[in-house]
Order: sequence, then structure tokens, then C-alpha cells
Amino acid sequence: MGNEPLLAVGLDNIAVAESDLSLVDGANGLLVYRGHWARDLAIRHTFEEVAHLLWYGHLPNEQELAALMERMKANRSLPEHVKAVLRAIPDDVDMMSVLRTGVSALGNREHRWPPTVDEVIAVAAKLPTIVAYRYACLQGREPLEPDAQLGHTANYLYMLKGQKPSAAHVRALDAYLILTQEHGMNASTFTARVITSTQSDLISAIVGAIGSLKGPLHGGAPSEVTEMIEAIGTKENAEPWLRNKLEKGERLMGFGHRVYRTVDPRATALRVVAQELSGDDPWFDLAAHVEQTGLKLLAEYKPNRKLNTNVEFFAAAVMRAVGLEDELFTPTFAVSRVVGWGAHVLEQAANNRIIRPQSIYTGAMPE
Amino acid sequence: MGNEPLLAVGLDNIAVAESDLSLVDGANGLLVYRGHWARDLAIRHTFEEVAHLLWYGHLPNEQELAALMERMKANRSLPEHVKAVLRAIPDDVDMMSVLRTGVSALGNREHRWPPTVDEVIAVAAKLPTIVAYRYACLQGREPLEPDAQLGHTANYLYMLKGQKPSAAHVRALDAYLILTQEHGMNASTFTARVITSTQSDLISAIVGAIGSLKGPLHGGAPSEVTEMIEAIGTKENAEPWLRNKLEKGERLMGFGHRVYRTVDPRATALRVVAQELSGDDPWFDLAAHVEQTGLKLLAEYKPNRKLNTNVEFFAAAVMRAVGLEDELFTPTFAVSRVVGWGAHVLEQAANNRIIRPQSIYTGAMPE
Repeated sequence: MGNEPLLAVGLDNIAVAESDLSLVDGANGLLVYRGHWARDLAIRHTFEEVAHLLWYGHLPNEQELAALMERMKANRSLPEHVKAVLRAIPDDVDMMSVLRTGVSALGNREHRWPPTVDEVIAVAAKLPTIVAYRYACLQGREPLEPDAQLGHTANYLYMLKGQKPSAAHVRALDAYLILTQEHGMNASTFTARVITSTQSDLISAIVGAIGSLKGPLHGGAPSEVTEMIEAIGTKENAEPWLRNKLEKGERLMGFGHRVYRTVDPRATALRVVAQELSGDDPWFDLAAHVEQTGLKLLAEYKPNRKLNTNVEFFAAAVMRAVGLEDELFTPTFAVSRVVGWGAHVLEQAANNRIIRPQSIYTGAMPE
Repeated sequence: MGNEPLLAVGLDNIAVAESDLSLVDGANGLLVYRGHWARDLAIRHTFEEVAHLLWYGHLPNEQELAALMERMKANRSLPEHVKAVLRAIPDDVDMMSVLRTGVSALGNREHRWPPTVDEVIAVAAKLPTIVAYRYACLQGREPLEPDAQLGHTANYLYMLKGQKPSAAHVRALDAYLILTQEHGMNASTFTARVITSTQSDLISAIVGAIGSLKGPLHGGAPSEVTEMIEAIGTKENAEPWLRNKLEKGERLMGFGHRVYRTVDPRATALRVVAQELSGDDPWFDLAAHVEQTGLKLLAEYKPNRKLNTNVEFFAAAVMRAVGLEDELFTPTFAVSRVVGWGAHVLEQAANNRIIRPQSIYTGAMPE
């Protein structure tokens, strides 16, 4: 049977690639995208600028940014057959299944090995349109065509809501999307790299990643946080409500993270943005107050646990502030993470080797 | 940064699971499905019997087999919206992209965590119908409804070709499909398990696996073998044609395998079936002769390489004999491998842990 393989269920402590894309340092609460603090990028830059960084390796100059934005705008519209596919799917099918099918319908013989950055741009540009198209159909609205006057995030909100979004809402959602574009070798990114490693095409890789993100252990269960903030409702109610939970030994949603043992740097950045925008939206005020109260009470009830606010906490606040329903939470996560998936697919393809682990047979042998 | 992870690009010598499903022993040329030689299963049993073994852990008795066949037959037909999706996709889109989209369109809120064997049966039953539906549309034929008088393999051939297949063709294709139902922790199976590990749904896992199988490093490039056999054309031409290739230092397609360093046990079984059916089809005669000639010449030209016939060689012969075009090769592989994907998804879910490896950051640090 040759050399016995090393059994590593979960692959926790196995690195499957060297990558220039991001450093996720959970012990120290750090997140770096290609030499830049993700926190700073979210506060100072736009979705397209950070996507350029991840795809091309550097922040764009004015000309490069204009070129990328032009190319993304030119790729936002859906082919007619993809619209037909989206309309064919019954109304009661969940949005992540629809997104998976809609992206899969973009596949064709032109997507070859190796994948290209142009293909990555094209699919990243279309994800918001797929989500918004379906959402409009469900609401009985005529889907809006993308608006070439608007940037990526503003156009997404415009197509979803049917009206031009406020600058504060664009700013908040942009920061959230930037902070979730990339996060090391998570399960969906890994899925995309495994698929790419067989020399399959970009669409197959993105479709697989969407399927992975759909799982609540990865894509999260955002309604838990939004329901908590909604149940609290007012600043005055925060402390009694949270204290009651902790007295009953229940978990507070939106605190603690599998990877970040200290602060979640994405939460730190979103807190800055939320504070900057406070006054613009009551959701930010309430979320900031609930966070402070939650941290105070966690220190009191669980002094040894170091439970900090995670990105989902502020994500829920941002989603509520900009008026996106819970069902749009994970699809919106896909709208941002597709940037990282694309960057990883290109990196995998540039130096490819098939990813094919082993299993240890524990069944019977034939007599 | 905590403990430094072990860098294992390709994961060659890492086992990600203990599995009761199959033993792939490349050094000794052995393939076991749950305590049975895959070779014996292919020679003595049917598609549904072996699927029962992989899904339930034992070969079925008469009653169990009847129940499984009944359930598969009841699940063969496609929902109307999936037919509409398949018809909406432009004719020039490749069959694997269509299959990926068609299976994705089966997704809905009823597919929950954890996946069930009933869901596995339903999707495995529908894959042949999706392939055949699309194929009929491309040929300008009205797609045939599944025929409940026929077993899984016979019905697949019937829907594809528009007429009842011969017993010899069913027998040959059945053997090929059984031998490719399961093969350890290959890239597509691994993809399905990674997706399942996030508590995503069965459809997402199968869709991701299809995307992985689409890559030629995994799903293969069958046309290389079929083109070789076609170019040879007659028994008399085999030796001069193959000798000419080897003299020019070119590879012979259909010989050698990444895992099997000695015989490929699947090729051994298909050789038995092909010999049993020789006289029934000229393709089997030609393939058997080309194989013997190829092995003789490889021993002469590359005596140190131990190159044996691989499963693709006989697969190509079977596909040609039953009259399936090259474009149907990888989709037909998916029709069989979905059995193993389903079994692995159930096994992963039964004892789940998220599969989330790491990467080693090689980019710059912020100043």
C-alpha cells in the first residue's frame, strides 16, 4: 500500500498552497490583503480598487481604475438565456440555489484552461445582476438594467432596491464587501482551487464555491444576529435583554470567531465606518450600543473567554441599515467573495498541481 | 501565528477521511468496494445492485433490489422547470456545463442538512435523464420519457439513442459504469465532501463534483483514445501504427495511470467483459487486438516503465461499441460516479467536521 498517508481530518493544520493574496492571523487579529491592512482598505478605498489589488497585485492608479470600472460595467448585463433560466426556476427556490444555477448558466466553451483575469472580471461583474434580477422577479417588479453611472456597490443596491441609494448606505455596504472579498483558504475558496486543479474552467470553480458558501458553517446564519438586534429594538432594552440571555446560559450571537481568538479586524473596521455614519442611520446607533453592552456583559459573565465582536455582528447591522433582507445576506457575501475566489483560481492555475488527497479504507477486505 | 502548518501542495500523502467505501491500492492494482472486488461486482452484478452496496453497505437481497429499482424509476423524470432550463441554454454550450446547470436547477429548500439517501437516489436517477434530454434536443428529436420497463443502464441508452439497446451493449456499459461508480478520494469526490462539510446541501455537493470532473486532469480526454483506435481502424494496421508512434517518441493513449503502478483492475474487468462479448461487436475485437499489440510494443520500447492498459482504453472501446459520441464520455462518467459522490456525501455528513485547510502567506507585510 506504499507509504501510509498522514490522517488529517478537517485539514486544520495543513497548508495546501503558498499564496500572495491574504494573511489571516487569528492569534493577533490581523488581516492583510497583498501587503495592505484590510481594515485600511475598507476605510479608504472602493470595491473596485481592492478587487484590482487582489486580481492584479497592486492598487490601481487613476487610469487603471477607470479601465477596470469600464470593463466591469461592460460585463454587468446578463445574456438573455441566463435571464430565461432565472425566470424558469420556481419562486420558492432559495436564493443561493438560484445564484448557483444562474452562474452555472454562464458556462460555455469559451471558458477554457487556463482561466483569465478577463473571465474573472466578467463573472464578478455579473453576480450582483443575477441576485438583483431574481430578487426583482420575486417582488413582481420588472428587473432593472445595470446603471453605468454607478460604481459596483451602488449599482448593486440600485438594482436591488429600485432606486438610487444614499451615499452613506453605499459607503457602509462597500466597506463590508471589501472586508469579505478575501479570507485565506476558507472552505469555498478551497473548493474553487480543488476544482481548478483538475484544469476545469472558471465557472465550474465559482459554482462549486457558491455551493460551499451556501453551508451555514461557512456562509453563516445571519438571521441569528439580525433577529437579536431586532428583538432588542431600543438602546434601553439592550442591557436587560442581553443579561437575560447570559443568565440563562445562552450564547450571544455575533460574538466570537473560529479563527480570530482576539479581535476580528473586519469588525474593527466596520465599527469605524458605522461610527462615521452614525446619525445617518438608526441601525448603526443601535448596533454600536448593543456591541458595547454585549462586550461589557461578556467580560462580566465569561471573563476567561475573550469573546469579541465578529464580522457578522456589524454585517447584520449594515445589511439592516441598507435594507437588505436576511435571504440576501449570503448571496451578498458571494458578491464580494467572488473577488477572492477569482484571485485564488488565477493563482492556482498559474502554478497548478492537481489537489487529490487520500482516504484510509476502514471497510472489510474481500474473503 | 500559532503552530506553523505543514505545507502539502496537492495533498498527495494526506488522508482527509477514514472511509468504508473503497480501497484503491495502486501499488498492487486492487480496487475494493465495501468488502467486494470491484472486478467481480462488474462481472456479476448490475448498476443498481452495486449502487445499493455503496449506499447501504451491503448487496441487496431480491426485495431490497426491487425496492431500490422502483424508487429510482419513480425519480427519473425531470421537473418541468429543469426541462425549461435545459432548453434555454444555447446549443453550442458543452454537455458538462449543461449537466452542471441542469443538476443545479434541481436544488430547492427541501434539500436540507443532513443529506439523505433518498435525495442521493433521486439525483442519481435523474442524471441520465438530464444528459439524454439535452442530447435529444441537440439532435432535433423530441426527448423520450424514461421507460420504467428498463433498468438504469438500459434506460439511459434507450433515452440517448431513441431505441431499445441490445443486451450486449447494456452489459458492456453496465460493467463500465459499475467500475467507475467509486474510486476513493479523487478530486471530484473530495470536492463533494468539502462542500458537504460546510453543512451545505446534496445538490451543491454534486454540482461542485461535476465541475471538478469536467477538468481533463480528472475527467480525462477520452477523444485521445477513441481517435487512436479509429485511426488504427483495422487489426492489421495496429502494429505498424503503434510502432510508428513509439519510434517518434510519442505516448500511446490508454496506457499507464497515475495511481495504478501495475494493472488497472478496472481495465482487467472490462477486458473480461469485452472478450465475453467479442463477436457481438467489432469494436471489442479491434480494441482487444490493439491492447495486446500495444502492451507487446511497450514492453519492447519501454521495458522499465511497466505501462499497463488503463480504464480509459476499454472505456473508449465500450463507448464506441454502444455508439456514444466523445462529448458523452465525461457526462456518462458523471452518471456512474454520482453513486460514489452520494455515498461519500452521506459518509461525510454522518461524522462531519468542516474541511478548512490553511495557506502560507508569501506576500508583503504592510509597512
